[in-house]
Order: sequence, then structure tokens, then C-alpha cells
Amino acid sequence: LRSKLPDVGTSIFSVMTQLAQEHGAINLAQGFPDYDPPQSLLDAFARHVSTPGHQQYAPMPGLPRLREAISQKTAHVYDVPAPDPATEITVTSGATEALYAVLAAVVHPGDEVLVLEPAYDLYGPAIRLQGGVPVYVPLTLPDFRPDWNRVAEALSPRTRLLMLNTPNNPTGATLTPEDLDTLAGLLRDTDTLVLSDEVYEHMVFDGQPHHSVLQHAELRERAFVLSSFGKTYHATGWKVGYCVAPAALTTELRRVHQFVTFSVSTPAQHALADVLPDTSLYETLPAFYQQKRDLFRDLLALTRFRLLPVQGAYFQVADFRELAPDTDDVTFARRLTQETGVAVVPISAFYHNGQDHGLVRFCFAKQEATLRAAAARLLAS
Amino acid sequence: LRSKLPDVGTSIFSVMTQLAQEHGAINLAQGFPDYDPPQSLLDAFARHVSTPGHQQYAPMPGLPRLREAISQKTAHVYDVPAPDPATEITVTSGATEALYAVLAAVVHPGDEVLVLEPAYDLYGPAIRLQGGVPVYVPLTLPDFRPDWNRVAEALSPRTRLLMLNTPNNPTGATLTPEDLDTLAGLLRDTDTLVLSDEVYEHMVFDGQPHHSVLQHAELRERAFVLSSFGKTYHATGWKVGYCVAPAALTTELRRVHQFVTFSVSTPAQHALADVLPDTSLYETLPAFYQQKRDLFRDLLALTRFRLLPVQGAYFQVADFRELAPDTDDVTFARRLTQETGVAVVPISAFYHNGQDHGLVRFCFAKQEATLRAAAARLLAS
Ligand SMILES: CSCCC(=O)C(=O)O
Ligand SMILES: CSCCC(=O)C(=O)O
Repeated sequence: LRSKLPDVGTSIFSVMTQLAQEHGAINLAQGFPDYDPPQSLLDAFARHVSTPGHQQYAPMPGLPRLREAISQKTAHVYDVPAPDPATEITVTSGATEALYAVLAAVVHPGDEVLVLEPAYDLYGPAIRLQGGVPVYVPLTLPDFRPDWNRVAEALSPRTRLLMLNTPNNPTGATLTPEDLDTLAGLLRDTDTLVLSDEVYEHMVFDGQPHHSVLQHAELRERAFVLSSFGKTYHATGWKVGYCVAPAALTTELRRVHQFVTFSVSTPAQHALADVLPDTSLYETLPAFYQQKRDLFRDLLALTRFRLLPVQGAYFQVADFRELAPDTDDVTFARRLTQETGVAVVPISAFYHNGQDHGLVRFCFAKQEATLRAAAARLLAS
Repeated sequence: LRSKLPDVGTSIFSVMTQLAQEHGAINLAQGFPDYDPPQSLLDAFARHVSTPGHQQYAPMPGLPRLREAISQKTAHVYDVPAPDPATEITVTSGATEALYAVLAAVVHPGDEVLVLEPAYDLYGPAIRLQGGVPVYVPLTLPDFRPDWNRVAEALSPRTRLLMLNTPNNPTGATLTPEDLDTLAGLLRDTDTLVLSDEVYEHMVFDGQPHHSVLQHAELRERAFVLSSFGKTYHATGWKVGYCVAPAALTTELRRVHQFVTFSVSTPAQHALADVLPDTSLYETLPAFYQQKRDLFRDLLALTRFRLLPVQGAYFQVADFRELAPDTDDVTFARRLTQETGVAVVPISAFYHNGQDHGLVRFCFAKQEATLRAAAARLLAS
């Protein structure tokens, strides 16, 4: 049996979560909250689980009433023309399936896909599974900004797709309207599509708005834009996400989605459709997460970690080289999990070649007590 | 934008369901029940939706307690060694994702995959998306049996995988232990793997048992065996299935599964783990569905449809040529939906080249009242 991904092991998030469990470590590695979805959403879910007739297949592209609610929410949040629920919105089994299905739908063997690194660990393998060739361009340290000159150099007539992720996982960096303008200029006379992973769209701090590709009329014409109800509603275990894309792109996505999972949990979709009109549930998120970010940074200020800036998402990247100058980040992450009892993800896991900058990622989507307990362990060590 | 599946439209099941809705037809097209899951399962789901901490990511291969329950159920039902939950069982987003992920995990570009036709509509496109080459072998009419000589001829050193489906969708035909022996002989000195789609495992009639590939020690060593909680528990909208396979094959499946959907609904998995030990829920299914089959056949006996035998699954295939001798099956299915008000699936949709045998498929996983209402329309037309 010849492996299609011989060099790919179990996802770093699973590995670190398992290590955390084995060692009783506080899991700040895998990105998920240790609190529950809003009560109104839980109530809605329980209601639809008890509604006769809501337990069978949803329509393949998603429940019409959920797509309608997504359309209205998109128009409301970004002050843009509402995407057409019939032809431009597809509900997926989490943003993970959306990422995978977009790649499977548009990447032909030999196509290049441009990836800015550090990048979410599935991008590279999912591209390679399509016979695509990931072309990696590093984000520039220390602030993990795209160097658009390097992007321009990396683009070729074979670049089928360029992947964006804003706010970025793991770095928390965000793209500006100027970034999007620059990118639009670079792509203007090309056939290159854009996949914009915006699952942390509601976690941008310091009074800044999230700048969505959906707000950029020119880029939007060639873009798949992804979001995640798991992230927005503290329900990562429900596995519901979605993709907004122009009709022609959505047609290709659905052609593949119908064979990858076909459809998504019917009762979960009904529950989400019920709460989506409640704007307060997501409009409160920036303040909610900014408070966690600030608390966590304050708590870590007295450690010897050097904290990098965080503009969005729910991760804190930290430089550990003052603590452990000669240790690679994988070893450091393992030791921190096993000896200090705080699990983190080494940033090298987000580089295809395992580049090590002496950085680890903490997830701060945790209750205050959890963050305090983790900080106490870090301070004591 | 060059499509990867230019000749593939929307899945026939979606098309016919939508047509049924537009015309107020009784939907006997798409395969799903019009009744709910067992109350104990609904109660369990509602309980876990209300359990703090059960709303975040499940482990990538599935909840340990669900995999443990699947292992025990498998050993109990088939009287076989229990598959190892840690290394041989993977929970997937419905059997659809399991089918897709197995193909994505083992089919390299240029590999051949042997498919017995008629076959479920995703097999061909999902193979082609991997760069694989589907090699079709027809099941022989009128009883849709495999012709093992033709299978032997179709096997080549490039045959990576052979796909089985027993009980078969759409035909209801089942494989015998002798079939499995013959197949094992054919594959003995090859590297060809087997994907056995057994989602209708608990719907086999007339006192016959289901013969699972898991019971065939030799085939099991090279097989991915799929099942579907949606089918077994009348919960097609929950999208939870699973795959049992030897550790080496499971490793490859999980390598891909982690990037296709990562994990499956946590509360749904907990609910299923709660009810799986209740053997009565599936041991009553053969009688439950046999009664529906017999009722539906009795109701249709006075129509001019000629009913083919049904050994398993929840579909009735019927020859309509006495009613409409010069009509192709797609036209007939549309007319029956639009004019008679009963939606069905044309069997040509299960052939890669649209072969038309004058057959349509009725789903009889419906309440008695629904089956009677449909029969009344068919009799009146
Ligand atoms: C799908 S598990 C990984 C969750 C996540 O987004 C992360 O930790 O980066
Ligand atoms: C995934 S929709 C199709 C359901 C089904 O199994 C069928 O109708 O054959």
C-alpha cells in the first residue's frame, strides 16, 4: 500500500491534545473553547432534535432558511450586496470540509496553489491530494505580513489559486484594505482564484474591523470565502461552516461537496438559522476575546516568554528562546506539555519544511480560570 | 474555470427531491425515512446537546466510547473478532465521507477501480476526482448478480480497489458467502483492496443473514467496510457513519479524513454511543423493513409495474415498460413525479453511460400511510 501522504502524520492538533490528556496538561494547544455555545443556540438545537422530520437529509447545498440567514448576516455585517442563497452559499461540514472541497473542485493535477506561511496544517496536504503543487511564500517576521513583491514573483500562469487566511491562524495577523487592493492588482489579468479562510472574522481587536474579501468587489468575483459557525458560536464539535462564492465557483464547489459529504446535520442547521438573526451573539465577540487576549498577555508578562502582537483570532504566539535558547520548538512544546503541564503547538508545524523560529502558539479561547491556572504553571516553572 | 467534473450535474437524489417538492409529489425517490429515529436516541441526543463540554471537537478518529461500542457491536452481530477501536475504526461524516475519504486515501492517478453497475452515483465521480479510472462491470440482469468471470477479466495489475455494495443500492441484491469466497480467490495474489459499502447491513429479508466482508477472514485483511448510522437509526440528517479496516488501511484513511472533515458531531456521537448497546434497535429492523417491502409490493401488484425481487436495502426496482413502452427512464421518472405525483429515481442514473433498462427505483422506507397514498396515485393514473 503506497501512501498518498507518506510524510504526513497525525495532525499536530490531535497529537498535542492527546499528549495533554496523557500528562494532565492544560490544553492550550488545539483551538477550541472550554465554554459552551450561547444558551439560545443550545436551546434551539435541543428543540430541533425533538422536532419530528428534522432528522433526515438536509438539501445538499444547505437548508434554505440557513442560507437565507447567512445571506442577510453577510450583507448586514459587511455592508455589501447580499450573496444569493440559491447560487452563492454552500453549507459545509465545518470550514475544514469547505477548504478541502474547494481545493478538490478547482485544483487540477500540476496546478500551483500559493500558500502564505505559517499556514494551517491542512492546506499543503489537501493541495497535494489533488495533485496540486503548493508554492510557499513566507510571511515576514516579526509581524507576519505578506511581502507582496514575493507574492508577485511566486505567481505564475499555472497558479490556479491563492490562499488567504485573515485573521491568521496561528499568528493573529490581519490583512488591510490596502493588502486586498494590492492583491487585486496582482491578480487582475490572471485566472488565479482566491480562497479566503476567514473563520476568525468575528475576533479582531483594538477597535479594528475585519476586512473581508467579500467587501472587495473585484476580489470577490474570484473568491471562495469561508466561515465557521464552530468558531463564532463556540461549537467546534458541531462541524458546520459555509462558503460564499460567485455562482460559477459555487457550482464547481457543490459538484464536489455532494460527493464529499453530501449534506450537513439538519438539526444543527435549523438551530443556527434560529439564532443567526441575533446580531448581539457575534457583535460581542471582539470585546469578549480581546479581554481574554489582554488577560492572558498580562498574566504572561512576568514570564520570560516574549509575546508577539495579536490583532485577531484566538491565539497568542510567543518566543521562548530566552527560556530555552538551544531547544527546537517541537521539543519545547513537548516539554512544556509534559513537565510544565501546559500544552501548546510549535509554530514549525505550520511550515511545510518545519522552519523553527523558537515560537509556540497558545490558544486563549479559555475561561479566565483556565488561563490563570495555565499562567500559574508557566510562572512556577 | 475548467471543471473537474464537467459531465456531472447535481446528484439525481437532489434533483428528484426538488422536482417532487415543486410538484407536490410523494417523494419515493431519495432514500430516507419519513419517520424519526428511536425515542431513546432522540432523548440521548437532546441530553448531550445540553451537556456542558460536549460541544467541542471530538477526537479526529471518533469518540473513543463510540468506537468501543462499534467494536463490540461488530463482534456481536457478525460473531467475529472485535475490531480494535484504537487502530481499526474511524467515525466519518456519514458513509458518504467514508466512501470519499477511502478513495482519496488509496487511489493514485492512473489506478483502476472496479465498480459493479448499477452503482451508487458517487462512486464514479469520486474515483475520477482522484485521477483514478473507474472500470465498470455490469451486474447481470434480471437478478443483478455479479458475473465473476467478467470481474476476473476486468481485474488488472493496475486495479487498486474493487467496490462492493451489499445489500445493493439500487437493486436490493445481496452477496452470498460463495460470492465472497470467489472474490477472495480472484484477489488472492493481487494487491487489490476492497471497499465494501454495507450501509444497509440491517435490512436483509426472508430470514437471510447479511453476509459481511468482515466475516470473511481473508477478504477482511484487505477491506474497508462501511456502515451508516443514518440508515440504521432513521437519522440520515445526522451524517454519522464509520469505516472498519485493518490498522494499515485505517492509517491511510485517517491521514486523509483529518483533512477532509477532521471530526464528526460530538453530541451525535455521544448519543449513538449511548444507544448502540441496545441490540433490539437493529435486530428488529429486518422484520420492520420486510413488512414495508411486502406491503408495498402487495399495493403495487395491481399496477402494471413489474416488480423485481428485493433481498435487502429499502428500495424496490420496477420495470415500467408495460405502462410506457417507448419512454426512456428519465422521462418516465419525471412524468411520474409531475403527472402522477410519485417521485422515483431512474435506474439509468446508476450507470456511468446512462444505460436504460426501463427501470425505476421506489424507496419504501416510508410510513404505511405514505406507501398507501403513493400506491393510490399509481393505481389511479
Ligand atoms: C480541527 S482541530 C484544529 C483546531 C484549530 O483550528 C487549531 O487549533 O488551529
Ligand atoms: C445522500 S442522498 C441519497 C440517499 C440514498 O442513499 C439514495 O437515495 O440512494
